[in-house]
Amino acid sequence: MTLLHRARSGKLPEEVARAAAEEGIAPEKLRESIAAGRAVIPRNRKRRDIRPVAIGEGLRVKINANVGTSRDRADISAELEKTRVAVAAGADAVMDLSTGGPIDEIRRAILAECPVPVGTVPVYQAAADAASRGKSWVELSPDDFFDGILKQAEDGVDFMTVHCGVTRDALSRLVREGRRLDIVSRGGSLLAEWMEFNGLENPFFEHYDRLLDICREYDITVSLGDGLRPGCLADATDRAQVHELMTLGELTERAWKRDVQVMIEGPGHVPLHQIAANVQLQKRLCHGAPFYVLGPLVTDIAPGYDHITSAIGGAIAAWNGADFLCYVTPSEHLRLPSVEDVRTGVIASRIAAHAADIARGIPGAMERDNRMADARRRLDWKAQIELSLDPETARGMRSGSLPTVDEAVCTMCADLCAIKTSQKAIRRG
Amino acid sequence: MTLLHRARSGKLPEEVARAAAEEGIAPEKLRESIAAGRAVIPRNRKRRDIRPVAIGEGLRVKINANVGTSRDRADISAELEKTRVAVAAGADAVMDLSTGGPIDEIRRAILAECPVPVGTVPVYQAAADAASRGKSWVELSPDDFFDGILKQAEDGVDFMTVHCGVTRDALSRLVREGRRLDIVSRGGSLLAEWMEFNGLENPFFEHYDRLLDICREYDITVSLGDGLRPGCLADATDRAQVHELMTLGELTERAWKRDVQVMIEGPGHVPLHQIAANVQLQKRLCHGAPFYVLGPLVTDIAPGYDHITSAIGGAIAAWNGADFLCYVTPSEHLRLPSVEDVRTGVIASRIAAHAADIARGIPGAMERDNRMADARRRLDWKAQIELSLDPETARGMRSGSLPTVDEAVCTMCADLCAIKTSQKAIRRG
Repeated sequence: MTLLHRARSGKLPEEVARAAAEEGIAPEKLRESIAAGRAVIPRNRKRRDIRPVAIGEGLRVKINANVGTSRDRADISAELEKTRVAVAAGADAVMDLSTGGPIDEIRRAILAECPVPVGTVPVYQAAADAASRGKSWVELSPDDFFDGILKQAEDGVDFMTVHCGVTRDALSRLVREGRRLDIVSRGGSLLAEWMEFNGLENPFFEHYDRLLDICREYDITVSLGDGLRPGCLADATDRAQVHELMTLGELTERAWKRDVQVMIEGPGHVPLHQIAANVQLQKRLCHGAPFYVLGPLVTDIAPGYDHITSAIGGAIAAWNGADFLCYVTPSEHLRLPSVEDVRTGVIASRIAAHAADIARGIPGAMERDNRMADARRRLDWKAQIELSLDPETARGMRSGSLPTVDEAVCTMCADLCAIKTSQKAIRRG
Repeated sequence: MTLLHRARSGKLPEEVARAAAEEGIAPEKLRESIAAGRAVIPRNRKRRDIRPVAIGEGLRVKINANVGTSRDRADISAELEKTRVAVAAGADAVMDLSTGGPIDEIRRAILAECPVPVGTVPVYQAAADAASRGKSWVELSPDDFFDGILKQAEDGVDFMTVHCGVTRDALSRLVREGRRLDIVSRGGSLLAEWMEFNGLENPFFEHYDRLLDICREYDITVSLGDGLRPGCLADATDRAQVHELMTLGELTERAWKRDVQVMIEGPGHVPLHQIAANVQLQKRLCHGAPFYVLGPLVTDIAPGYDHITSAIGGAIAAWNGADFLCYVTPSEHLRLPSVEDVRTGVIASRIAAHAADIARGIPGAMERDNRMADARRRLDWKAQIELSLDPETARGMRSGSLPTVDEAVCTMCADLCAIKTSQKAIRRG
């Protein structure tokens, strides 16, 4: 029986109790959210020991870090290091998007040591397996695609992105309206090329029940991918994107009927003022299923700083109801991220998620901010460093420029420290 | 005659025409905004050659970079270098907040070479001059404070932050409600201590007309400082802050009556969901005067990353109507920023301002994003780098990890490049 089935049966599953404890909410409340499909706990039946991470309504906003090789950079130890660094920096989940080198080995290594849910995009598996047999992905059969999914399911993958909504109808709508950047999702473009080459419908749409059978058997959370997400501001919220989202809404209900947990993936590149509408549309069209967004990036012109463009978009999205933020690193649009980029990306996403938790009124979300304010009032630098999201970076910055006369202050204000002056100015009774 | 006087007289001042040309808007429209107080062009009568930078309604959001020494770090060449780097990175204005070392010399050097408006907080001048005579600022007379203003006016400072709203009434309200962090503005705390020690009203409030006389004579834009801005989320939008803002609204009208241009300074540390209300309150209470915000920082717990916490808050503030963003560097709360921190802070603020320009519907704001999208579609890396906000950083990242097989792609996706696949997938007529 899947977690969704057990949650619906009314008895409290053990992982729901544990996740609720971690969130500081009533277990029964979380059970109800999961039963209604408005929250998920991704966990493959084969992976018993991971931290149960709940994603969805009324919960702290969670963040995901992508790791994984490409054909150009296929260093397994680097990707394992990125996984460790991401988790240490606070990632709630990790996706292995490896497409180059020994991808089976990499995935299994990550699954073996990663303490949080692991996701994948299994269509890359089929493409890689085809490439290793000297074939193009357009030559794959639907069976080949499902073999890729089954292999990863068997390995224990907890959630899988599958681009089921890239249908022939959605693609023809994309062509009719026209786009600046067509398809920027690797999985989406790969399926679109397969469909164009073979003159067939998307196999994951056409044989969606076969996908659900696998997810049900392994208790995998299906993450319905947004293969037609906008790749630039100009393409945001266009008809192709909305068409795909409506399809994902229908597929959400079919998954729920089969006791399979679902998340919905969302954009992408979106102007600031369209983000709230995107979230509301997803929540309505997909009947409250958790929303997993990539960014959104609020401008296209900041390569090298896309962790910042997406921290802005992610904070606004999460404030408006998005539940799960996929990080973006400073390397986005430029190269495979370095280990340091991964760390920076996770911290930027955590800032966005935390700011949104406060705005959403998650109980206790501001407690650490309050303790930081108190530490600042006391000029207690040890506590300030410890309460920082990234103590190592904060410590390094302060210790690289220590005050010379009065160690209670910092070199920004020195003798003009407003905290000190304000203690003299305001003498309380 | 001040610029405000000339704009009201109906004839088009030359600097308004130049600023309008830079913005791509009708000069008459900008003249009207300035005449109504809803836009300003800060420029001291003594500084003829600077770029006219217009700040306010219907204009691109502008950004300011703070530079300047403290007693602990007083290296004039470093601050000049920060000024150059800030302007090169796109700062529309620079504030010299020097409080240590030869501050007269530093200010004059910055004014001599900075091509954009320069602002100061002249109360630091009086405090520094007192310190150099072995006195505390609490021993200063109102005349001493005004001498500091006059000295800086004579040097050519274009806009001045003066904390006129830190009144005895506002402070008693602060004490009555209670705060976690009392006063975090250096100028605000200094004045509060002076008032407490001397048992007198804020001299810049009590003798506000004297300040306006100087601003009028030199055509200085007064930036009414928020001395009681919140220093942590918990203190945001409290009664002391709102009380001060109401006073600033009254002082705005008095400045307008004397033909003096005014901006209003705003917080600070503000939770995401309170930012729009803060902007709307300022616009209403200050009758549309331009709003100049510091951050806002949307969480207190990210020292080392406060350029990101304030890019989030700044984007939301500017989207909701804030006109001028004061940058925050990664060093905030930890140390005087380095040259590299200044650069990073400016870029983060530009991202926020640009994202807001798009959301506000500033004509042409998305043009560069569109060209970037087109360059991405063409896999034209030269154009992508050139269109980046920070080409040097983008180039460095890409060239540090060049693709090995196909130079048209990047090492993120390599052979699975979605742009390439999508060209094959979508064959247009």
